[in-house]
Amino acid sequence: MQGIFDRQFYTNHGPKVRELEERLASHLGVRHAICMTNGTTALMVAARALDLEGQVILPAFTFIATAQALIWAGLEPVFCDVDPVTHTISAEKASPLITQNTSAILGVHLWGRPCDIQGLESLAQNKGLRLFYDAAHAVGCSHKGRMIGNFGEVEVFSMHATKVLNAAEGGFATTNDDLIADKLRTIRNFHTTETFVETSLRINAKMSEAQAAMGLLSLDDLASNSLRNKDLYKAYGRCLAGLPGISLVSYDENEANNYQYLIVDVDPEQAALSRDELVLLLEKENVLARRYFTPGAHKAPPFCDDFPQYVDTLPVTDSLSSRLMQLPLGENTTEQDVETICGLIRTILNHGSEIRQRLHSMG
Amino acid sequence: MQGIFDRQFYTNHGPKVRELEERLASHLGVRHAICMTNGTTALMVAARALDLEGQVILPAFTFIATAQALIWAGLEPVFCDVDPVTHTISAEKASPLITQNTSAILGVHLWGRPCDIQGLESLAQNKGLRLFYDAAHAVGCSHKGRMIGNFGEVEVFSMHATKVLNAAEGGFATTNDDLIADKLRTIRNFHTTETFVETSLRINAKMSEAQAAMGLLSLDDLASNSLRNKDLYKAYGRCLAGLPGISLVSYDENEANNYQYLIVDVDPEQAALSRDELVLLLEKENVLARRYFTPGAHKAPPFCDDFPQYVDTLPVTDSLSSRLMQLPLGENTTEQDVETICGLIRTILNHGSEIRQRLHSMG
Repeated sequence: MQGIFDRQFYTNHGPKVRELEERLASHLGVRHAICMTNGTTALMVAARALDLEGQVILPAFTFIATAQALIWAGLEPVFCDVDPVTHTISAEKASPLITQNTSAILGVHLWGRPCDIQGLESLAQNKGLRLFYDAAHAVGCSHKGRMIGNFGEVEVFSMHATKVLNAAEGGFATTNDDLIADKLRTIRNFHTTETFVETSLRINAKMSEAQAAMGLLSLDDLASNSLRNKDLYKAYGRCLAGLPGISLVSYDENEANNYQYLIVDVDPEQAALSRDELVLLLEKENVLARRYFTPGAHKAPPFCDDFPQYVDTLPVTDSLSSRLMQLPLGENTTEQDVETICGLIRTILNHGSEIRQRLHSMG
Repeated sequence: MQGIFDRQFYTNHGPKVRELEERLASHLGVRHAICMTNGTTALMVAARALDLEGQVILPAFTFIATAQALIWAGLEPVFCDVDPVTHTISAEKASPLITQNTSAILGVHLWGRPCDIQGLESLAQNKGLRLFYDAAHAVGCSHKGRMIGNFGEVEVFSMHATKVLNAAEGGFATTNDDLIADKLRTIRNFHTTETFVETSLRINAKMSEAQAAMGLLSLDDLASNSLRNKDLYKAYGRCLAGLPGISLVSYDENEANNYQYLIVDVDPEQAALSRDELVLLLEKENVLARRYFTPGAHKAPPFCDDFPQYVDTLPVTDSLSSRLMQLPLGENTTEQDVETICGLIRTILNHGSEIRQRLHSMG
């Protein structure tokens, strides 16, 4: 931070942003990493860099910013259901939604688990569509041994404060295509002095030096924090083992993963309480349990009003929205916290029918 | 900065952002100041908060981001010419451009000089239009004794690194309307947990704590830096006095101003060299002279291609684009620098006809 003040170089792609971009590109084994003010803006810039028009297919089971970014970029989101096992978009689910107005597919690597990359690549190629990814969850994750950041035409990452790699606010886009990289860099800066290639609309999406400095510190810790997350994930797995209807989202042990989201599936048929009842009780015990994502993007404003055709047609998304729960993980969570939280869950579920009766009588 | 790390509260409207918002509101005497990631994004959010549709009239003689923000917000920019004396949009210039599709007027307080506030207010009221301002240049400036930030329905400020009040990257919107403030705050955060009022499309426009910390430091220095700028402005005035065809943009001494832009008018009829020739020679002497704004927003891509109807119809904007020049000012400029720069200008212009001959023979 002191260096930033000494140099009086606060933004406009100063030395810290350039260093962060080089280190990210090297870490992910990708030609270009282009830092931006945040992940949402990076998605908006990516959509413009691909010169998209009309409709873009994306999964409804994603953070709402994925869909918001498309609207800001002048596009129509087409909400796709997801696979019940992977929770992500697949070629099988996306294919029937393609129309003459479709220009692209925006895949999402939810929980850091790659979506159906091979299937979507074939589909996009066969149908002449552009393909890009929201990789907000997936920094440091791999697919068939290759780092996320190398797939599709662009991948977009978040460096929000809640992420395992963070710059307080921040994000970046990656690509192996030099022309797309030039477009991303050009659109990022509203100022015509920084023009690498002729593009249309531009914006201010610049990352400041202070953001980059925090991002660099965080990048140093990415590997160790991911390992730490993995240990906590394993601890949750041990402590919740055998509880009827309770299971963790699983990861392929042969791939790299950041384990930054601890997602529990609460099976409404098997568990003694519903996900919503369980979250309510955990919140009362001051456990930061969250319903994630509830509702799906297609059922949140403005999408539910502007695109009502999706509201009742995405059963897997609706089901996942009603049964998944996020539990605490990360730097400030210890293995003992995990044991305490899991002990609470066990106690609550063991008294499930009694608790449910009381909840209902409280009305 | 240390406090930010200690608190581990990096974004999402932490204590520093709240402190900056309170201090800005108090400084400007306005009910609400709402910090955002940068001024361009703040303009986009402001346009959405006003629920605008269709066409918005704005001056063509402005930084291009003013027009870019409207496109991102799904609106059509209608480029208006400016007044030759004030360089800003006036009711007289805007009135003929109003159509059935016009939803708003976006005024710009160029060089910190308020645009035709009274005229635009009457016009907007008579025609049922919304009225908001790009006040990126005008923090700490006043109109009829009242601080800029209190006019129209929203005013939007920039805290870019190049500004007299800066947070490296940053911006904020001000309003005296509680409902609009709630809309601005809601749209700023993509997350539904922070919903103050039902709105449509949201975005991530959050300012981080690190940005706010830098903004607070800069706010402490705003008054002294403005005074310093004023001294340099006066020095430029003294040193350039009597040079044919050279004059400074003037300010109303009865109003507050930040004097952050040192703008020189080079009259092509009176000066020995054109603005472009003068800038070229000053650049060769390592003086940061800039042609400002060249071209006008209506002649820059994508607007010149998408809205060609304005290209040849805004004579005052075109004239100003060809004759105004910005000279160095601010923290790193001393009164001696001003004397040196003005000495150079005097020497160059005194040898104007000789230099012009050489420039032409060089082709």
